[in-house]
Amino acid sequence: MGKIGIVYYSRGGKTEKMAKLVYRGVEMEEVEAELKKVEETSLEDFLSWDGIIVGSPTYYGLVAASIKDLFDRSIKYHGKLEGKVGGAFSSAANIGGGNETTIISILQMMLIHGMIVKGSSKGDHYGPVSIGSPDERVESQCEALGRRVARLVKKLSKKER
Amino acid sequence: MGKIGIVYYSRGGKTEKMAKLVYRGVEMEEVEAELKKVEETSLEDFLSWDGIIVGSPTYYGLVAASIKDLFDRSIKYHGKLEGKVGGAFSSAANIGGGNETTIISILQMMLIHGMIVKGSSKGDHYGPVSIGSPDERVESQCEALGRRVARLVKKLSKKER
Amino acid sequence: MGKIGIVYYSRGGKTEKMAKLVYRGVEMEEVEAELKKVEETSLEDFLSWDGIIVGSPTYYGLVAASIKDLFDRSIKYHGKLEGKVGGAFSSAANIGGGNETTIISILQMMLIHGMIVKGSSKGDHYGPVSIGSPDERVESQCEALGRRVARLVKKLSKKER
Amino acid sequence: MGKIGIVYYSRGGKTEKMAKLVYRGVEMEEVEAELKKVEETSLEDFLSWDGIIVGSPTYYGLVAASIKDLFDRSIKYHGKLEGKVGGAFSSAANIGGGNETTIISILQMMLIHGMIVKGSSKGDHYGPVSIGSPDERVESQCEALGRRVARLVKKLSKKER
Repeated sequence: MGKIGIVYYSRGGKTEKMAKLVYRGVEMEEVEAELKKVEETSLEDFLSWDGIIVGSPTYYGLVAASIKDLFDRSIKYHGKLEGKVGGAFSSAANIGGGNETTIISILQMMLIHGMIVKGSSKGDHYGPVSIGSPDERVESQCEALGRRVARLVKKLSKKER
Repeated sequence: MGKIGIVYYSRGGKTEKMAKLVYRGVEMEEVEAELKKVEETSLEDFLSWDGIIVGSPTYYGLVAASIKDLFDRSIKYHGKLEGKVGGAFSSAANIGGGNETTIISILQMMLIHGMIVKGSSKGDHYGPVSIGSPDERVESQCEALGRRVARLVKKLSKKER
Repeated sequence: MGKIGIVYYSRGGKTEKMAKLVYRGVEMEEVEAELKKVEETSLEDFLSWDGIIVGSPTYYGLVAASIKDLFDRSIKYHGKLEGKVGGAFSSAANIGGGNETTIISILQMMLIHGMIVKGSSKGDHYGPVSIGSPDERVESQCEALGRRVARLVKKLSKKER
Repeated sequence: MGKIGIVYYSRGGKTEKMAKLVYRGVEMEEVEAELKKVEETSLEDFLSWDGIIVGSPTYYGLVAASIKDLFDRSIKYHGKLEGKVGGAFSSAANIGGGNETTIISILQMMLIHGMIVKGSSKGDHYGPVSIGSPDERVESQCEALGRRVARLVKKLSKKER
């Protein structure tokens, strides 16, 4: 029925908090979810998931180096993630601080893997952004991300990829 | 069973040629396709299609103004394109001339509409790029784009969006 | 001694308000400034300015079509803007709504013209972003943008380009 | 009179070859240049240079993880690179393979540091791109990048930053 991995890097705890909210969103759709720090995530995890959601703090307007490193190494399985569903979220210190470009950077990596990505016509269009600690707005955005990735995984898993 | 619109702007004919190749790719998957110049495309066309593929020449690294104008006006139906499938392609005068960022700019507009976008692990990852006149490589890339959007539309149209 | 044009598109007045704040920043540096709606801006204005600052509302994550149209037509003078200084700002309805990517889209057009662009290590790194009506934070960001473009124009105009 | 560092990551040698060509361009302008692999580059090097040019292979459409890691750690000196001149180049396996977005990703990191970046109205607008081994076109593009960064450093170093 599909399984979704949520991979994140967090030092201060904000991205982790977002990851847990995304996780809750996936569960609401009754899709199995796995929450993993990037340090604990293997390339084989990527293979085993039908959806991959990646969360990163906003470091110089791009995904954090540790997550980038995981994706660089994922070249080993290039082609094997084709057709999986992806999503991204980011926490940032301030508005205009590079949060959107961080999310776009993650989505670009996923597109290059041949993954499927969905935006949202409401709220944070590319993916949830938290300015400082996640507030109520961010909570609902993160849940919404988890739900929309989960719904897409369900739809697509009903038939052969 | 789904219908896909291919909207393009072309002055010199290169983007048009790509559009026709994408069209052929859609037909190969036995999905109905409509080929439209941007000047002939209405916002209601957007509503009637299950997939939207947009082609633009590379003008200052972004989608051409006439296509941007169509999308700016599509705010009228904001939310109504949610869940439709999108794709993009671009022709350019030279390598490094802004072709990839043109494609990304189109995909960003689609994500903000809540659309679904798929990359490719092979070839032109974000979408087909032609440097000068479309050659054999570009032909196969354009067909592949048409096919992958068509396949995704078929998969998703089998159930309620 | 240099002259800076501030070109903007505004319907609701928010981007216009930002433009006036940017204008004030340029004046603080005692550099001549011109404030122009995009509808009133000619390609010859571009030629006459040493710095060009562009403001746009966030429309589908990219610069508004009317500004894109001006840049598309600027191909007429391609090469003539080489070495001029650029900057960008954007107003948006909500966080994560595409404001950063709108600014980046403007900067990309400028880079393709061979223009010089400077970020900021403080605040809105790529350029000022207003979420809703410009508040105090946005005021200081807009002034700072005007000032940093003006300072760069002064530095560079002291010698031949 | 200014000094420019060229930092690169290269496994197969293509990016290294480009780096050497960029180096030659800097030297043509009689500006001191330093060529460093990313593994040998310290954050203090960043401080000592007036211009920083970064080269990366195209890995999933973004700068390689090892370079991203250097920039993530550069937060230690955040604010200290303000006003330095930047530039970027990338090698890629194929057209449309993410090379432009790799260069843009590097420029974004530089803008967030408050650095100054210049495009080019000719050739590879954002920065040189090599598809496969650097050919004659790439050679001239790389030299041109070195020269334009060097010229900008010279201009700006004539007065206090």
